[in-house]
Amino acid sequence: MELLAQTESELTTFERRESEVRSYCRGFPTLFTKASGYTLQNAEGKTYLDFFAGAGALNYGHNHPALKKRLIQYIQEDGIAHSLDMATAAKKELLEAFEDVILKPRRMDYKVMFPGPTGTNAVEAALKLARKVTGRQTVVSFTNGFHGMTLGALSVTGNGFKRGGAGVPLTHAVSMPFDGYFGQDVNTLDYLDRYLADGGSGMELPAAVIVETVQGEGGLNAASDEWLRGLEAICRGYGILLIVDDIQVGCGRTGAFFSFESAGIRPDIVTLSKSIGGYGLPLALTLMKPELDCWSPGEHNGTFRGNNLAFVTAAAALRQFWSDGAFEKATARKSERIRSFLAGLIDRYPQLGGKLRGRGMIQGIACEEAELASDICKEAFARGVIMETSGPSDEVFKLLPPLIMDDDGFREGFSRIEEAVAAAVRKRKGAVKS
Amino acid sequence: MELLAQTESELTTFERRESEVRSYCRGFPTLFTKASGYTLQNAEGKTYLDFFAGAGALNYGHNHPALKKRLIQYIQEDGIAHSLDMATAAKKELLEAFEDVILKPRRMDYKVMFPGPTGTNAVEAALKLARKVTGRQTVVSFTNGFHGMTLGALSVTGNGFKRGGAGVPLTHAVSMPFDGYFGQDVNTLDYLDRYLADGGSGMELPAAVIVETVQGEGGLNAASDEWLRGLEAICRGYGILLIVDDIQVGCGRTGAFFSFESAGIRPDIVTLSKSIGGYGLPLALTLMKPELDCWSPGEHNGTFRGNNLAFVTAAAALRQFWSDGAFEKATARKSERIRSFLAGLIDRYPQLGGKLRGRGMIQGIACEEAELASDICKEAFARGVIMETSGPSDEVFKLLPPLIMDDDGFREGFSRIEEAVAAAVRKRKGAVKS
Amino acid sequence: MELLAQTESELTTFERRESEVRSYCRGFPTLFTKASGYTLQNAEGKTYLDFFAGAGALNYGHNHPALKKRLIQYIQEDGIAHSLDMATAAKKELLEAFEDVILKPRRMDYKVMFPGPTGTNAVEAALKLARKVTGRQTVVSFTNGFHGMTLGALSVTGNGFKRGGAGVPLTHAVSMPFDGYFGQDVNTLDYLDRYLADGGSGMELPAAVIVETVQGEGGLNAASDEWLRGLEAICRGYGILLIVDDIQVGCGRTGAFFSFESAGIRPDIVTLSKSIGGYGLPLALTLMKPELDCWSPGEHNGTFRGNNLAFVTAAAALRQFWSDGAFEKATARKSERIRSFLAGLIDRYPQLGGKLRGRGMIQGIACEEAELASDICKEAFARGVIMETSGPSDEVFKLLPPLIMDDDGFREGFSRIEEAVAAAVRKRKGAVKS
Amino acid sequence: MELLAQTESELTTFERRESEVRSYCRGFPTLFTKASGYTLQNAEGKTYLDFFAGAGALNYGHNHPALKKRLIQYIQEDGIAHSLDMATAAKKELLEAFEDVILKPRRMDYKVMFPGPTGTNAVEAALKLARKVTGRQTVVSFTNGFHGMTLGALSVTGNGFKRGGAGVPLTHAVSMPFDGYFGQDVNTLDYLDRYLADGGSGMELPAAVIVETVQGEGGLNAASDEWLRGLEAICRGYGILLIVDDIQVGCGRTGAFFSFESAGIRPDIVTLSKSIGGYGLPLALTLMKPELDCWSPGEHNGTFRGNNLAFVTAAAALRQFWSDGAFEKATARKSERIRSFLAGLIDRYPQLGGKLRGRGMIQGIACEEAELASDICKEAFARGVIMETSGPSDEVFKLLPPLIMDDDGFREGFSRIEEAVAAAVRKRKGAVKS
Repeated sequence: MELLAQTESELTTFERRESEVRSYCRGFPTLFTKASGYTLQNAEGKTYLDFFAGAGALNYGHNHPALKKRLIQYIQEDGIAHSLDMATAAKKELLEAFEDVILKPRRMDYKVMFPGPTGTNAVEAALKLARKVTGRQTVVSFTNGFHGMTLGALSVTGNGFKRGGAGVPLTHAVSMPFDGYFGQDVNTLDYLDRYLADGGSGMELPAAVIVETVQGEGGLNAASDEWLRGLEAICRGYGILLIVDDIQVGCGRTGAFFSFESAGIRPDIVTLSKSIGGYGLPLALTLMKPELDCWSPGEHNGTFRGNNLAFVTAAAALRQFWSDGAFEKATARKSERIRSFLAGLIDRYPQLGGKLRGRGMIQGIACEEAELASDICKEAFARGVIMETSGPSDEVFKLLPPLIMDDDGFREGFSRIEEAVAAAVRKRKGAVKS
Repeated sequence: MELLAQTESELTTFERRESEVRSYCRGFPTLFTKASGYTLQNAEGKTYLDFFAGAGALNYGHNHPALKKRLIQYIQEDGIAHSLDMATAAKKELLEAFEDVILKPRRMDYKVMFPGPTGTNAVEAALKLARKVTGRQTVVSFTNGFHGMTLGALSVTGNGFKRGGAGVPLTHAVSMPFDGYFGQDVNTLDYLDRYLADGGSGMELPAAVIVETVQGEGGLNAASDEWLRGLEAICRGYGILLIVDDIQVGCGRTGAFFSFESAGIRPDIVTLSKSIGGYGLPLALTLMKPELDCWSPGEHNGTFRGNNLAFVTAAAALRQFWSDGAFEKATARKSERIRSFLAGLIDRYPQLGGKLRGRGMIQGIACEEAELASDICKEAFARGVIMETSGPSDEVFKLLPPLIMDDDGFREGFSRIEEAVAAAVRKRKGAVKS
Repeated sequence: MELLAQTESELTTFERRESEVRSYCRGFPTLFTKASGYTLQNAEGKTYLDFFAGAGALNYGHNHPALKKRLIQYIQEDGIAHSLDMATAAKKELLEAFEDVILKPRRMDYKVMFPGPTGTNAVEAALKLARKVTGRQTVVSFTNGFHGMTLGALSVTGNGFKRGGAGVPLTHAVSMPFDGYFGQDVNTLDYLDRYLADGGSGMELPAAVIVETVQGEGGLNAASDEWLRGLEAICRGYGILLIVDDIQVGCGRTGAFFSFESAGIRPDIVTLSKSIGGYGLPLALTLMKPELDCWSPGEHNGTFRGNNLAFVTAAAALRQFWSDGAFEKATARKSERIRSFLAGLIDRYPQLGGKLRGRGMIQGIACEEAELASDICKEAFARGVIMETSGPSDEVFKLLPPLIMDDDGFREGFSRIEEAVAAAVRKRKGAVKS
Repeated sequence: MELLAQTESELTTFERRESEVRSYCRGFPTLFTKASGYTLQNAEGKTYLDFFAGAGALNYGHNHPALKKRLIQYIQEDGIAHSLDMATAAKKELLEAFEDVILKPRRMDYKVMFPGPTGTNAVEAALKLARKVTGRQTVVSFTNGFHGMTLGALSVTGNGFKRGGAGVPLTHAVSMPFDGYFGQDVNTLDYLDRYLADGGSGMELPAAVIVETVQGEGGLNAASDEWLRGLEAICRGYGILLIVDDIQVGCGRTGAFFSFESAGIRPDIVTLSKSIGGYGLPLALTLMKPELDCWSPGEHNGTFRGNNLAFVTAAAALRQFWSDGAFEKATARKSERIRSFLAGLIDRYPQLGGKLRGRGMIQGIACEEAELASDICKEAFARGVIMETSGPSDEVFKLLPPLIMDDDGFREGFSRIEEAVAAAVRKRKGAVKS
């Protein structure tokens, strides 16, 4: 009781002053103060295990010591903090790290654009560029895709609730079925191909296709490598640009740095954000093949495209984690461990009606009854685990831990999560009975 | 010559790897490394006077010691860096500082939304909310207004070059003439009022009007207080929401914290960004009257709306600069000093055909020949001054120094700027002759 | 009473079966059966004087004997009635009459398109063509312009009630102030020119300007010849196509065949409908300068673009009325007569607060109190005169008789109309008193 | 040679003066003068068999004697020709005939709207109404649907060439796969249902679905009755209005008056045009369930919605052909005859790679090589048969004779068509060999 009262009083400022739009603070109703690695701490000193990782923005965990050290050093030395898009040593540091550690070893050649420090900025820039290059307007997106909240990005987002927030019609986009949308027997690319091939389909030849390889917000739907290759082939066939939005599942979330590496495709444009900043600081990149870089200077701009603190932590993170293949291999092992745990849960708790979803270190279970997923997250929070739902009906509970989570973290986390599942299943059974 | 070669080699990384969209690094072609107060330093150790202030993001100058101290302390203590929109001590710190220092003394009651850490996010959220509240779609914007680069914000932006970047038609907005657009004799509000009053005007009843009190990008056009009051009255009369975009000229740029205080109006929605973060870190707020706060939880979201490093610097800046009226008064004095200097320039250099523009610490001179303004900025840069043009034809050179600039800064800066003007005028004369 | 009952029973079919959208049958609640010249007859044999002329579709009156004869002959001979856009003798007859009687004497060279037999089809085709030719999308229209009810035409129409019927946002159009919109002292072309000249105005370079020389539905606002010439000059200056929508006031309504002849301008595209068919049969033409005729075959089509009955009456009407200048001269005299009558009314009935509106044989009086105009039309109907209001608030009662109206018609009509005015003024005075 | 020269000279007027958009006069390059029943005659007196029927506007043939008599009588008696939407005896005649002969026997209750005398007007009115009733904006249309050339109707039309003519993006419509679009094994309704059921599909809940039961322009794709019933059920389930566009295949083209009668569905809104006028005169109706009739008076209007000549021929046609079931039965027999003939052709000319398409008296053959269909139509024209292609690649040659075609007509027509097929096949074989 006392604790509750305390928590409430801690949160009254938010209730009084912050807009009703606030959201996660409702699901995780406590006041967080500190964080480190895969844990967060609240004002009472209680520690939480992080299986959410800032929705993918904290792949390297909270306040990683190496990044922290570099960040403090940079600030202490009066490194320039804000630079618009002037040339700075910090930006140079990032560009060179990105070249050395990411592009060269993969034999990739992308120009780098700083479109403003949020994912939705990166998507807006990608859409603008695709339209400019092709002179076309329509963009193909996919069912349950999620690309951001500004008007352009929202128009290629599937979620009806988010779309409704626009207040104006969302146009110039056609929503095509994602891999598996009509079940495993239907190759949804046939659908897209038929619409493109038929001059009477009602769909204009699009400027671009925008796709996530794993739909994080949309319910952890993972496209197969084969499907992605097929999509790339269709794009090449019709002269359509392929945009991979790797904001949530890039930066190693599925193992490789880019989530599309296993498919062997070469998108024309790639968007990165979330974990690219390393330390959770706002940063976003739009990558484009050099031959597409037809921007006029300043045609897209923004005040915070030069967030130098993020440049230095981003550069440090790239060199720290991606200089060799160790990190990727570790992620593969951990992904397997998560898969095995979740598969076990499905077996042990048939009441879930559970189905495995996702890939790499973004996996979860789709529950037959959507509410069960929310209940599980609530129970998990009560047991000190930060974990969230996703999917059009919030029917999936997902494990999205920092990639640096270690054995202890998994052991303790899995234990608490299983308790949470058991408790939620038990309560629901009771609820259904009564 | 050697210096040039050196600079070039410093910038090859950018030329090789950064997109052609890069812009300011072309006008200020050097590699910046450090900054402090109103100066920046390049890789060769050369110092530049900052009369640009990050396009208004650095009102308190670079790396202000008080903010820097707080920032380092917060990082060192493992303060949570990234929190989505969970409740954190840092966010609480900011909300309470904003209440105590800004809202209460002004008897204002606004709910605070964190729409994502860039100005364009704040504008998109404002437009969404206005449309949701009213159920209408059209938004009235003004000629030469500038509100951002994402599709919603771009649709209310006047600049044709930026608009062209959209690649799709920009709709649901009507551009009305800003104060003074047809000369001082025409009250442009009559125009707006006539369109609203006449059911056959072809303009739907708008959801909102969005306005900057001083158009920074649009050429330093300052609306009079009377015009702003008239605009508010029209909005009230027709049940239209009034949005003031105070991203560039809020946070004290014109003296008072909000640029509309002198007009005595109470906008329904206010957007803040740029200097609100204090240290140049990405942050943006959308303020709304409590009765308009009809958001559903999560209806608008974003990964970096919880940039806690910016929260702590923002809170520190508010308490540092706004706890009493001294800062505002100092700004008034400095504004007068700038005005006087510019008026003198106009007198001393009739070749400019100069006209004073702007208000507070965002003032400049509109040159008869647009190219002269660019030339002056180039000459200024050669003399170690960072300064930029604005206006539809880049015909205005503007002085936008950090508000903390001191006597030495002004003296030295004015001296170099006048040299730059003289040089530019001289060269142009030569150019015209030959 | 009995008559009323009878009328009601005559109209029950319409009340029972016809949609609520029906309109004129409410203002003129009787069952019309026959018509001839400038009179209509109802089922009871009562005769009405026509001061409405089918909203401009009956410039040559009802069932003109010469046209009637030709029409019956054509039908009797099994002339082809419906031909899509195949080549027919009837269409040839029309094209040749249009060449001989209209184009050649005016040294005009327009290609003729049959876009479907209604005005709104003609406007849609004009807009499509202008967009195709220029590759641009925006069209400038004018306050209180009226161009039709289909989505493209509606988007350039000013009336808010009609626009609201669209149910979707109307886009790609910018509404500029028509001649006189801000009073006689303001040249509204300056507004348009300023928006076009300023790259930051928020208006894209338009494909076309669409204008009526006299706004029939919009309140009989007549553009001056000078204004029209200025508009043409602006269009030429910016490479914008000039579309004159001459659907309502072409075909001699203002004297000359085209309403823009007195201004001496040469529009790039002209739309004609209403009276072009001669007998009130559905027909519409879109005229375009030959160099603009970049249509692909069948790019715009329609089932009834080959309404051959209208072709033969149209051809007959052109040869009957336009082979020499007599008709135009007679219209000038009649226009003067109408003007003089209306000016007299304004003098004799100061209670109207009347202002003369319109030009040629589309003139009327704008009443200070809008309801007075409706009352006058009601009183006129009770006295056997068909007459209508127009304007954004229906504040204008307008005289739009067939051009063939003779002395008897005017004498009798004016007498009844004056009675109606007197009665309406009287009643209103009573109403206001009580 | 001489004939050719003569024809050319007959057509020079068109080449000189008519827009390049003209189309059918290119495929049928002769000057038509008269027509009767199922034949047309050209200027040289050559007779053509009509297997096109004005694209469905001449179901009762050309100049049917009973209608012709009534039409001439009405004109001779000075029946009112043009009436806007005033109440006229002619309109009453039509409304009552429509009630007596069509609605009552089918126990249907629709309000009748006269939206302007073309199909596209009827569709625009239907879309407006559906949006007004539901307050929603999106309309679901189908691949290869065709609904008209004005902007609203075009947005629900599939054909890319026609859509391209818009010159602006076509919005507020989602194109779903028509029956059979992915082959006979895929029920395309599952697709629509999935998109509607899934809140993350990216499709807003639509105002309406608009569908043709047989897609005339789209390639004679006939929806099964079962599919139509399924579509209706989906609409009912989600509260979506069902619009059947019966402009081309209503008025008996498939046997019953409405093409959807065999499916047993009750659309909320029905559009009729083409043959509803009886004599080929411009007319269109929008039918709506009474409870949907929420129009305000005059909210949609148009100059020629009162085409009284069409009212009298329409009324006469309804009473002449639809007072008993004989006409429908005869159409069924004739449809069978056509089917049998076409099936025979497919057998006898395997080179066609032919597939039967269509239903009732709108049937044809889809050829493997699209060009063959055009060749066949050309050969048919040379043999005195008017016949056209349809489909996204013009790959279908279609038989669309007037419903009144008799044994002689079929015998002679089939004979000539078979000759044309043989000739085209022969030539192509030659062409391929060489």
